[in-house]
Amino acid sequence: MRTIKSEQDIHDMARGAVLLGTGGGGDPYVGGLFVCEQIRKGRHPRLCSLDELADDAFVLSIAGIGSPTVIVEQLISEQTLARLLGRAESFFGCRIDALISAEIGGANSVFPLALSAISGIPVVDADGVGRAVPQLEMTTFSIYGIRATPGILMDDIGNVVTVDAASDRKAEDLCRAITTAMGSLSFSAIYPMTGAQAKQAAVRDTLDLSLQIGRVIRNARDGSSDVFAALLGYLNALPGREAYELFDGKIIDVAHETRGGWHWGVVTMQSPHSPDDIFTVQFRNEFIAARRNGKLVTMVPDLITILDRESAEPLTGEMLSYGQRVKVIGLSADPMLVRPESLEVLGPRAFGMDCDYIPVGRCMV
Amino acid sequence: MRTIKSEQDIHDMARGAVLLGTGGGGDPYVGGLFVCEQIRKGRHPRLCSLDELADDAFVLSIAGIGSPTVIVEQLISEQTLARLLGRAESFFGCRIDALISAEIGGANSVFPLALSAISGIPVVDADGVGRAVPQLEMTTFSIYGIRATPGILMDDIGNVVTVDAASDRKAEDLCRAITTAMGSLSFSAIYPMTGAQAKQAAVRDTLDLSLQIGRVIRNARDGSSDVFAALLGYLNALPGREAYELFDGKIIDVAHETRGGWHWGVVTMQSPHSPDDIFTVQFRNEFIAARRNGKLVTMVPDLITILDRESAEPLTGEMLSYGQRVKVIGLSADPMLVRPESLEVLGPRAFGMDCDYIPVGRCMV
Repeated sequence: MRTIKSEQDIHDMARGAVLLGTGGGGDPYVGGLFVCEQIRKGRHPRLCSLDELADDAFVLSIAGIGSPTVIVEQLISEQTLARLLGRAESFFGCRIDALISAEIGGANSVFPLALSAISGIPVVDADGVGRAVPQLEMTTFSIYGIRATPGILMDDIGNVVTVDAASDRKAEDLCRAITTAMGSLSFSAIYPMTGAQAKQAAVRDTLDLSLQIGRVIRNARDGSSDVFAALLGYLNALPGREAYELFDGKIIDVAHETRGGWHWGVVTMQSPHSPDDIFTVQFRNEFIAARRNGKLVTMVPDLITILDRESAEPLTGEMLSYGQRVKVIGLSADPMLVRPESLEVLGPRAFGMDCDYIPVGRCMV
Repeated sequence: MRTIKSEQDIHDMARGAVLLGTGGGGDPYVGGLFVCEQIRKGRHPRLCSLDELADDAFVLSIAGIGSPTVIVEQLISEQTLARLLGRAESFFGCRIDALISAEIGGANSVFPLALSAISGIPVVDADGVGRAVPQLEMTTFSIYGIRATPGILMDDIGNVVTVDAASDRKAEDLCRAITTAMGSLSFSAIYPMTGAQAKQAAVRDTLDLSLQIGRVIRNARDGSSDVFAALLGYLNALPGREAYELFDGKIIDVAHETRGGWHWGVVTMQSPHSPDDIFTVQFRNEFIAARRNGKLVTMVPDLITILDRESAEPLTGEMLSYGQRVKVIGLSADPMLVRPESLEVLGPRAFGMDCDYIPVGRCMV
């Protein structure tokens, strides 16, 4: 168990979480400010490892559901967070021993830290997918038998809904519809599980991974080293992971819309050296497929991240705009995500693409 | 308290309920068969009057929510009904003393009778609007201070959702979204209330009114009298009500679609005597406005009913089709619905029309 006392750590973790968020998960800026404010008040978020969890601990996943375009405009109130914990404990009829992110990525990694700061409940250094995803059943929790519901959703004007769905896929349909009716953003407490279940199904150490990624970028930026070289070096040294620079260019078009509770779109980039060299990234909250001149070079569940080409600041989908100079990185997914049972839920076919998964290293050649 | 032992009564009540359903509420055919089947098994629905209710009785409103186009295709299972009652009692934490229809109209008047037959819980001879309406907050319950939620919604594949909304308008948004995600039909237990509240807020004796209307039509049809003369005679004799034949013609167009959980459309009729004499009825689940040659002749909350011109069988919106010979009747709403506080929720402006309510008698001249 450790407490986070450094605001720098929060900013680093948020930066790394945007990279792992692969365009989605929401901008963690506002959430990060909220946590830093708590730290300044002496309320420090607490982190525990999966192994520190008692097998019979009651662990609950807390997540914002909705469109990142709305998350970025929505301030979190301490009251709403406290009410969410209170309603969740009374709904599940027991004390919450630990919180766990349903996904790592932007706002949804910072959100449990904010709850931890105000409540003292520790956050498990792990999550349910090791990246961000657009649907709530797209998690290793669900893949390894933990039910997404019963769960509770609320907004900050006092609507509270509980869901007990026939399947996790149906839970996604219901939660998405409810979220849309709540104005395209809801706060949820889902995936009730025991410590033993979390140990078996969660992707490990992903908050620490976010922190390290954020630090590597900041340190390289402050120092004299090439930021992208440092970042790719760090990512390639992770066990079982590979990272590649996929493209270096300028954004020449962002076509997007908020529809059905998601943020949909395509961003198009052009090489500064060769105007015919076109790179596109398709997104549904998260970046799901990258194509160079029409040819797929990275696909889900591998991670696609678009970063500012000077500062290597990872960008969320809704931050993208015409004229930005960017680099695109492809990072292979956590090994848990490329098992056959995971690819059924998280692979390209689950996103409507008519192809089997090809890992980034083989896909881009 | 009385029991319904006659299948004829069920058929009569269903027929009358379609008239009061003003095109909506769903076809009661399947629900009626279900209740008759129960009666044949010796399980009789029980009716009680509002005055028989104890002031501290726990009364719950049971309704199907969704598009009538889906209701008509959906069979009710005894299991689903029993599960709804069971989940409702465990959610509200008390025994249900009586059921009350949220609205009279088609399937939603038969539905509580089906629950009564299988459970023995009596149905109150009253409802929350005296007709059918497309939104769940459009009730005298809501107008007179009874909250629509907390409530529970379920479907027959095992999804269960509870809603505690910040307002009844928001409850409608949430329940409609949930219903759409459930496949455009859900079963709900909403408007928890005491007997004292029901006595103050409900529209009285509307199940009996349905029964009488259904009987008048059947008797006149069997006898030698003119069915429409008999029906209009009966309706005009009701205290505070007026009924008119608005049109006699042939359906020449039905434009409709199921969207957002509702059945939307316009039906166009033509006079057989004068092809330029055109009558249209606009609907959103229920018929909300009737126009003769463009001029409004009846509007919500007054009731518009389209009936087969030979048998005087009242027709639901989804039964209408090209070539049908029909008559249209306008019936003034229950006096509770035309009070200023009711018109705010049930008047033409609540349906997006840019005019104040004009009662049918004055409107059609």
